[in-house]
Amino acid sequence: MAGSTFGNNIRVTSFGESHGRATGCVIDGLPAGFKLDLKELKSYVARRKPDPENGGTNRIEEDELIILSGLLDETTLGTPLTIMVENKDVKSSDYEEIKDIYRPGHGDVTYDLKYGLRDENGGGRASGRETLSRVIAGGIVVQMLKALGVSFESKVSYIGFMHGNDEAVKGYLDQIRNEGDSMGGICEVCVKGLRAGLGEPVFRKADALLTGAVMSIGAVKAVEIGDGIQASTSFGSDFNDEITEVSENGIKAGSNHAGGILAGITTGQDLVLKAHIKPVPSIRKDQHTVTKDNSPVILSVPGRHDVCIAPRVLVVVEAMMAISLMDLMMDNMHSKFSSMEEFYK
Amino acid sequence: MAGSTFGNNIRVTSFGESHGRATGCVIDGLPAGFKLDLKELKSYVARRKPDPENGGTNRIEEDELIILSGLLDETTLGTPLTIMVENKDVKSSDYEEIKDIYRPGHGDVTYDLKYGLRDENGGGRASGRETLSRVIAGGIVVQMLKALGVSFESKVSYIGFMHGNDEAVKGYLDQIRNEGDSMGGICEVCVKGLRAGLGEPVFRKADALLTGAVMSIGAVKAVEIGDGIQASTSFGSDFNDEITEVSENGIKAGSNHAGGILAGITTGQDLVLKAHIKPVPSIRKDQHTVTKDNSPVILSVPGRHDVCIAPRVLVVVEAMMAISLMDLMMDNMHSKFSSMEEFYK
Amino acid sequence: MAGSTFGNNIRVTSFGESHGRATGCVIDGLPAGFKLDLKELKSYVARRKPDPENGGTNRIEEDELIILSGLLDETTLGTPLTIMVENKDVKSSDYEEIKDIYRPGHGDVTYDLKYGLRDENGGGRASGRETLSRVIAGGIVVQMLKALGVSFESKVSYIGFMHGNDEAVKGYLDQIRNEGDSMGGICEVCVKGLRAGLGEPVFRKADALLTGAVMSIGAVKAVEIGDGIQASTSFGSDFNDEITEVSENGIKAGSNHAGGILAGITTGQDLVLKAHIKPVPSIRKDQHTVTKDNSPVILSVPGRHDVCIAPRVLVVVEAMMAISLMDLMMDNMHSKFSSMEEFYK
Amino acid sequence: MAGSTFGNNIRVTSFGESHGRATGCVIDGLPAGFKLDLKELKSYVARRKPDPENGGTNRIEEDELIILSGLLDETTLGTPLTIMVENKDVKSSDYEEIKDIYRPGHGDVTYDLKYGLRDENGGGRASGRETLSRVIAGGIVVQMLKALGVSFESKVSYIGFMHGNDEAVKGYLDQIRNEGDSMGGICEVCVKGLRAGLGEPVFRKADALLTGAVMSIGAVKAVEIGDGIQASTSFGSDFNDEITEVSENGIKAGSNHAGGILAGITTGQDLVLKAHIKPVPSIRKDQHTVTKDNSPVILSVPGRHDVCIAPRVLVVVEAMMAISLMDLMMDNMHSKFSSMEEFYK
Repeated sequence: MAGSTFGNNIRVTSFGESHGRATGCVIDGLPAGFKLDLKELKSYVARRKPDPENGGTNRIEEDELIILSGLLDETTLGTPLTIMVENKDVKSSDYEEIKDIYRPGHGDVTYDLKYGLRDENGGGRASGRETLSRVIAGGIVVQMLKALGVSFESKVSYIGFMHGNDEAVKGYLDQIRNEGDSMGGICEVCVKGLRAGLGEPVFRKADALLTGAVMSIGAVKAVEIGDGIQASTSFGSDFNDEITEVSENGIKAGSNHAGGILAGITTGQDLVLKAHIKPVPSIRKDQHTVTKDNSPVILSVPGRHDVCIAPRVLVVVEAMMAISLMDLMMDNMHSKFSSMEEFYK
Repeated sequence: MAGSTFGNNIRVTSFGESHGRATGCVIDGLPAGFKLDLKELKSYVARRKPDPENGGTNRIEEDELIILSGLLDETTLGTPLTIMVENKDVKSSDYEEIKDIYRPGHGDVTYDLKYGLRDENGGGRASGRETLSRVIAGGIVVQMLKALGVSFESKVSYIGFMHGNDEAVKGYLDQIRNEGDSMGGICEVCVKGLRAGLGEPVFRKADALLTGAVMSIGAVKAVEIGDGIQASTSFGSDFNDEITEVSENGIKAGSNHAGGILAGITTGQDLVLKAHIKPVPSIRKDQHTVTKDNSPVILSVPGRHDVCIAPRVLVVVEAMMAISLMDLMMDNMHSKFSSMEEFYK
Repeated sequence: MAGSTFGNNIRVTSFGESHGRATGCVIDGLPAGFKLDLKELKSYVARRKPDPENGGTNRIEEDELIILSGLLDETTLGTPLTIMVENKDVKSSDYEEIKDIYRPGHGDVTYDLKYGLRDENGGGRASGRETLSRVIAGGIVVQMLKALGVSFESKVSYIGFMHGNDEAVKGYLDQIRNEGDSMGGICEVCVKGLRAGLGEPVFRKADALLTGAVMSIGAVKAVEIGDGIQASTSFGSDFNDEITEVSENGIKAGSNHAGGILAGITTGQDLVLKAHIKPVPSIRKDQHTVTKDNSPVILSVPGRHDVCIAPRVLVVVEAMMAISLMDLMMDNMHSKFSSMEEFYK
Repeated sequence: MAGSTFGNNIRVTSFGESHGRATGCVIDGLPAGFKLDLKELKSYVARRKPDPENGGTNRIEEDELIILSGLLDETTLGTPLTIMVENKDVKSSDYEEIKDIYRPGHGDVTYDLKYGLRDENGGGRASGRETLSRVIAGGIVVQMLKALGVSFESKVSYIGFMHGNDEAVKGYLDQIRNEGDSMGGICEVCVKGLRAGLGEPVFRKADALLTGAVMSIGAVKAVEIGDGIQASTSFGSDFNDEITEVSENGIKAGSNHAGGILAGITTGQDLVLKAHIKPVPSIRKDQHTVTKDNSPVILSVPGRHDVCIAPRVLVVVEAMMAISLMDLMMDNMHSKFSSMEEFYK
C-alpha cells in the first residue's frame, strides 16, 4: 500500500520533496463547521523551526501557509483541507558537492536501493522538511482536540544524559557543535483530558496506533508508553497501577506507569508517550563511507546542522499523536450500540 | 475502523474470546501454491506455550489446529486460510470469584468503559489467549519467508536485570513466584536475509509498521529499532553506521546501531527489534483496587500465572514482525516501474 | 490488497471453499450491547436457500449457524463476531466428471489463470456458496438497522421479461428448465427510513460504495441507482426530482428518479438500487468449450441447478447494502464538529 | 473513513472546491523510474474540456498543470506526485443569485444536510470541476498502462436514443439546448491488452472495484460490465461465452458478453464497461424547488451549461478505470508464491 497517507476517519496525505517546488498536506475527513484559528496554526507550525539558542541550525525557513481548499471563512467545510508551503530557500550547493556520496545514517542509500533513483538535491522525502506536513495537519487537529477538552504538555525531557531544561544544556550543545558532532534526546508528550475508551482492539489499539505513528518520524528510534522501558525491569507489584476509583470518565489510580492505556484502550488518565531521538546524522566529524560507485571516501558533512534535533521533533511527535487520537475518538463514537441509537434517534 | 484485521496485501483477522467456543484467524492474501509444513506449524505454535521450567504457568493448553479453509493438499489456494482452535480447557472458577473486581494492570476496566460490557469469564479479547491467532498466522508466514531466504533469530535478552540465558534465571524466577510477584523482560528479534528496499515512506515505513504491530501485543510497553534507546544518549559520530560497501543487495557497514533500517527502508543488514515486556499483572501479592460498584477492595489474584511472560511473548513478537515484513515485501514488488515491466512483459 | 474483507468501521471477512470444511465470516466492529435475535437471523439466512417452487434447485443445504465468538447471552460484545457453517452435504461426484473441463461463464478458468491452482471439488470461492457469509453478516446488520429505523423492501422485479411476481413465472421457469437452459433477472431493493447525509465524497459516496458492494456478488453484471439506466435516455426536465420540502430529515420531492442519492449523499428519500443478474451459467444444454489441456469439448453440465438465481441473490444484494449503509452511518457520526462536541462533552 | 482518497497500492487523493484557490490531486504509490510525457498528459486532461460543437458549454477553463512534487526530469521518483490547477476563471455571479435556492438534481441540499454548511460559490466538491483531479491522475496512469501493453478505446455510444457518432447528434443537441433542457447518454470503455488474472476475490473483484470507481463520478447513475443489462433478460445458452482456447494469456471465446471478467477476475479478453450518464441537472427550463428556508420557488438555472455531459465524462470514466486496473495489476504481482520467489530470488 502506498505510504504517504495516514489515518482512516481522518486522513492526512503528505507530499513534497525538501528541495522541490512545494511541501504540503491534504487533510481529509475533518468534521465540518470548526472555526480554525490560523494565527494559532502559524504559531504551532513555527514550533518546528530551529532555535539557534538551543542547538538548532541558523538556516531560516520561511513557511507561509497557502490554503488551497477546504476552508470557507476559516471554517472547515468537511472537504479535503489542503495547505502547501513553497520551498523558497532552496540552496543546494551544499548538496552538490556530496551528491555522489552516501551519508551514513541518512536515507540516501536506501532510497536509491528501493526506487533506483532519488532527488539528490537535498534529502527529498527523507529530509526533516517532510515533517512540516505533519505539523500543519497536527496543528489543525490540536485545535479541535482543545475544543473537545484535550490538551498536550510536551517537553524535551533529556538531551543526552542531561535534563532537557537544565541551564547547562546550551553550553553542552555548543561544545558538541564545536567538536563537529551531534547528540540524541528524548521527547515526552503527556495528553490530558482524554476520555476513557479510545483504541480498537486488537491491532488498532491506542498504543499500537500511537507508537507506529510516532515511529514514522525520521529521527525516532524507540517509543515507550508510560514507563515502558522501565517495565522490563519491574516487579508486577511495582508496575501495576492500583486503582482507587472508577467512573464513566475512567479510572483514578495511585500511579500511572501504564501511561494511560490498559489493553490498548485509554483509561482516562494522562496518556504519556516518550520518543527516543537519534543524534543528527549530518556531522562535521570525519566518517568513513562510500560513493555511489562503491569507492571508499571520508566525509565531513558541510553546512550548518542542528546539534540535537529533539527540540524540533517534539512538536512533530505531538502532531502525530494528535492525529492518531482524533482518529480514535471518531472510531469510538460507535463502540456502543446505544451511541448509535442516541445519534440516529 | 474496526481493529481486528492487520495488514494490507496480506490480511490477518483475529477472533475469539479466551473462554469462548474458539479462537482463530483468517489469513487472506497469502500467495497461492505454497506447500505448508503443518507439523512445523504446530511446533511453531507450541513455542507460545508456557514452560514450567522457566517461569511459566503449569496450565495446559491443548491447541489442535483445525483448518477450515484455504488449503488443498496442504498447499495454499490464494483464498482465505482459516484456522481455529477450540477452547477446551475453559475452567473459569478462578474468574468467578473475582469477576466484580477490577484487576490492576488488566483490561477489565477499559473494556467495560469502552463497550459497556465484556465477557467476564476470563480475559476475553484482552487475554494472552488472543495471541494464539497471531502465532498461527505468523507461523505460516515464517515458512514462506524462510523459502524466500529470510530467517529469524529470537531470544529473551533480559528477564529483569538478568540476561535471559543466565543459569541463575530459573532460581530468580522461582524466588519471585514464591513472593507472589512477577517480573518484566526484553524480547529481541533479529531478522536475517531481508532484502534492502522494504518499507513505504513516509507513514508505512518499515520501522513504523513493525513497531505498531509489535506494540499491539498486550504485554509490550516499549519498542526500539536497533539500539533505539541508546540513541537518545549517543553522539552522532558513535551512532552513525559507517558504510563499507553498497551493492544491490544493500549496504555493509562496520556497525548496525540503526538496526537495519534507514529512513524507514531496510538496508539489507540484519533487522533488529527489541520489545520491552511488562511484568505479568496477575500476582498473588495484595493490591488495592475497586469493585465494579467502586468499593475499595484488596485483591490477591488466584490461580497459577506466569512469573515472566517474555519467553512466551517472544514468538508473538516474531510472528507480528513476519506478517509485517511479508506485507512490505509484497508492496516492494512494484516500487520500480521496471519491475512491473518485467512482470507483465 | 487482499480481497476477502469488506468495510471499514464494520469489517466483514468472508472465508470458505464451497466444498471445504466450513464457510463463514468474521464481523468486526459491530457496536457492543445489541441483543441479537438468533431465530430471526436463521430465517434471514434461510431466504438464501433455493425455492424449488420458483426455479430453484432441489439440493438441500442445511446451514446450522455455529457461533464461535463475539456474543455473550446473544448480545454483541463489540469484539469480532464469528459464525461458521459446516459444509456437510459435500457431494462432489458431479464435479469429478467435469473437473478437467472449463465451464463457460464460470470462474474455473480465471482462478486457474490467477492462482495456478484451485479447489476443483466444486466452485470453491467462486461458488454461490460463498454468499452465505455475506447473508449471515448482513442478517445481523439488518437487525441493527431495523432498531435504528431503517428497513428493506426487496423484490425480484423481473425474471427475463416477466414481472417477478407474475403468476405465469413458475410455468415460464419450468419450461426453461425443461429446455436445459437458464434465465436472468433483476433484483430491486428499496431502503426506507435512511437519514439524509450518508456517503463520503468523493470516492466513498453512498452510490459508489453500494454499487461496488453489490457488484462483488458473483451473479451481478450491472447495477443502477434509482432509474439509473433510464437516465441515459432522459431529459433533464424529466429526470430531475423537483423538491417540495427540505428539513433536517432530508428532502421531499415529487419523484425519486435519483433513487435517494444526490452527489453521492443520501437525501432522506427511499434509496433504490437495482441489480441485473445474469442467467445461471450451469446449463444442461450443450456448450462448446475446452479442457485444461486446451482440447475442444462439448459440455452438458450435470446436476440440478437453479434456472434463475435472482430469487436467491435478492437477500445477498440486500445484505451487502445493509453492511455498506451501516458503515456509512458510522462515518456520518463525525461529519459535523458539533456532533463530536455533543458526544464528548 | 474519509472519502477523498482512492486506491490502495496506488492512492489518488483529490482536493479542491470548484471556486476555491486550486483543484488537484496527490498520486501516491506510482512506481519509480517512469518517464512521463507531460505534453501527452496535457492533451489527455484537455479531453475533459467542453466541446461547444457537441453539446458543450462555451465556458473556458484554462487548466495549467502545476507540478508540486514527485517528478525529477519528468521521471517519477516513487514519491507522491502532486499536481494542482489554479481556479482562475472564478466568475460566481451566476451562483450569487441562486445561492439560497436548492437546485434539483444537485448536491446543494445534501451537502448542507451532511455538513451543515457548504461553499455556495459554485458546486464546491459536487461540481464537475472535481473530476479534473481524476483525469490528471488517470492520464498519468494511462501512460504507464500503455507502456505495459494496455490501451483504452472509449466512445460515447449513445446520447439519448441516438448513437453517439451519428451525424444528426449535433442538431439534436442544439434543439435540446434551445428548449432549455438537457439529455443523458452512455459512455463505453473497452480496455485492450489486459492480462488475465486481475481482481481480488471476493470483495475486491475487478468488476466490483471498477464499477464502484466509476459510480463515484457525479453524473453516473448505472454501470454495467459487458452486456450487463442485457444479462437480466438473457438465456444462459446465449449469455455464456463459449471458450475456444485457453493459454496463460487468458481465454479466447466466440463472444464476450461477460465483458472480460469471470468470477471477478479478468479473462484476458477485452474488458468492457458502460456507464449510464444522467442528463445535466442545470437547465434553463422552469423547475419547482425550495429555498434554504423551505419556501417554494420556481427556478430557471442561469448560465451556459452542457446539454449532454457524456462526451466530457468519457475521459473521467476511462481515468477511474485506469487507476483501478493499475491498482489490481500491482496486487496481482504476488498472487502466486512462485512470483515472489522469482522476484526475491
